[in-house]
Amino acid sequence: MLDVLLLDVNETLTDLEPLRDDFEAAGLPRHTLDAWFAAMLRDGLALTTAGAYADFPALARELLEAQLVAAGIEPTEERVTGVLSGFTRVPLHPDVAPGLRKVHAAGVRIVTLTNGRAAMSEGVFTAGGIMPLLEHRLDVSVPRRWKPHPDAYRYAAEVCGVPVERMGLAAVHPWDIDGARRAGLQGFYVDRRNTPYPQAFLPPDLIVPDFEALAVELAR
Amino acid sequence: MLDVLLLDVNETLTDLEPLRDDFEAAGLPRHTLDAWFAAMLRDGLALTTAGAYADFPALARELLEAQLVAAGIEPTEERVTGVLSGFTRVPLHPDVAPGLRKVHAAGVRIVTLTNGRAAMSEGVFTAGGIMPLLEHRLDVSVPRRWKPHPDAYRYAAEVCGVPVERMGLAAVHPWDIDGARRAGLQGFYVDRRNTPYPQAFLPPDLIVPDFEALAVELAR
Repeated sequence: MLDVLLLDVNETLTDLEPLRDDFEAAGLPRHTLDAWFAAMLRDGLALTTAGAYADFPALARELLEAQLVAAGIEPTEERVTGVLSGFTRVPLHPDVAPGLRKVHAAGVRIVTLTNGRAAMSEGVFTAGGIMPLLEHRLDVSVPRRWKPHPDAYRYAAEVCGVPVERMGLAAVHPWDIDGARRAGLQGFYVDRRNTPYPQAFLPPDLIVPDFEALAVELAR
Repeated sequence: MLDVLLLDVNETLTDLEPLRDDFEAAGLPRHTLDAWFAAMLRDGLALTTAGAYADFPALARELLEAQLVAAGIEPTEERVTGVLSGFTRVPLHPDVAPGLRKVHAAGVRIVTLTNGRAAMSEGVFTAGGIMPLLEHRLDVSVPRRWKPHPDAYRYAAEVCGVPVERMGLAAVHPWDIDGARRAGLQGFYVDRRNTPYPQAFLPPDLIVPDFEALAVELAR
């Protein structure tokens, strides 16, 4: 029985592909998005592992500046802001709004939890029509531990006033599902690209191709 | 006063650039190296953050297979092994052997500590002429915590029988230096590419362009 569906945000709800245009406009190759995004998680998780904390936007900016310098491009404020502001304009995947409407109609509470900043996605959620469905929009700046540290998921359960086992995390990232499961939550793998799920991680409770399919599974 | 110089291995001692040829031979773009390497650290650190552990070679293999599948290439054993075996053939950076010889001659003990597998680098260290200089070659499979978790550095200090503050870590990765410093070690940033050091991390005790310069600084 599920009381609260906890949602990861970047890549799970939002489609980051348009950011490749912003990298290109700043003079960087389009594939820079992949290394940049993985490096942000690497650095945020490294600090969490060491018992420390940094803001996602601060890491995003520093890594982007380093990548511009490495490519021989001056890291002007215009170039840096051009890429970073892209996060506030990315679209939701097309299955998100119809899927979440069904989950909400079934009486399941819906809450987001991101390693980024909750405020960065407000415009995206409003434009995508899901803002009224979200009971809370949480980020890791309160527990000061990035997901998949158990404190991040426990914080969300505490805010919602539910035991962790009545909460399920939906994400496209296996490491996030693994962490949620280790913290006691259920884990739902949203696998839009049909990507093999790594055996290094605890398996998900459900594997679905998108949020419309997840809504059907949760209504069973 | 420094008793033991602790060395990170991948990228710090070894030059991973030749691996780009192996990615190309497997049918993947040369820039795949960057996203693959950052993703391995992301996944290893995610598991450490969640209180779990996976082997570097296991993660390396699973991520490579996923990248081949995503590119529409069959992840045959030949292709996967072709890339992974490249790790055992990469060269040392040219400053490493002369620099470490000077550090050794100054009476400082030298030990490696990698998130990879110590055995994977034996051939590289032998070919590069530094094997006789290394008192221990350690990896995180004993503490089962990836760097920068403090347990990884404490394990190295314990093996060497020195207090953490008489040990210094040399690395090209700011997150590793930050973690070593938080665990009580000194931190030396080897900055061959003149990359800005991110402010999100604790600053290093020394910044040097390579190991020859580090040897000079440690002899002061």
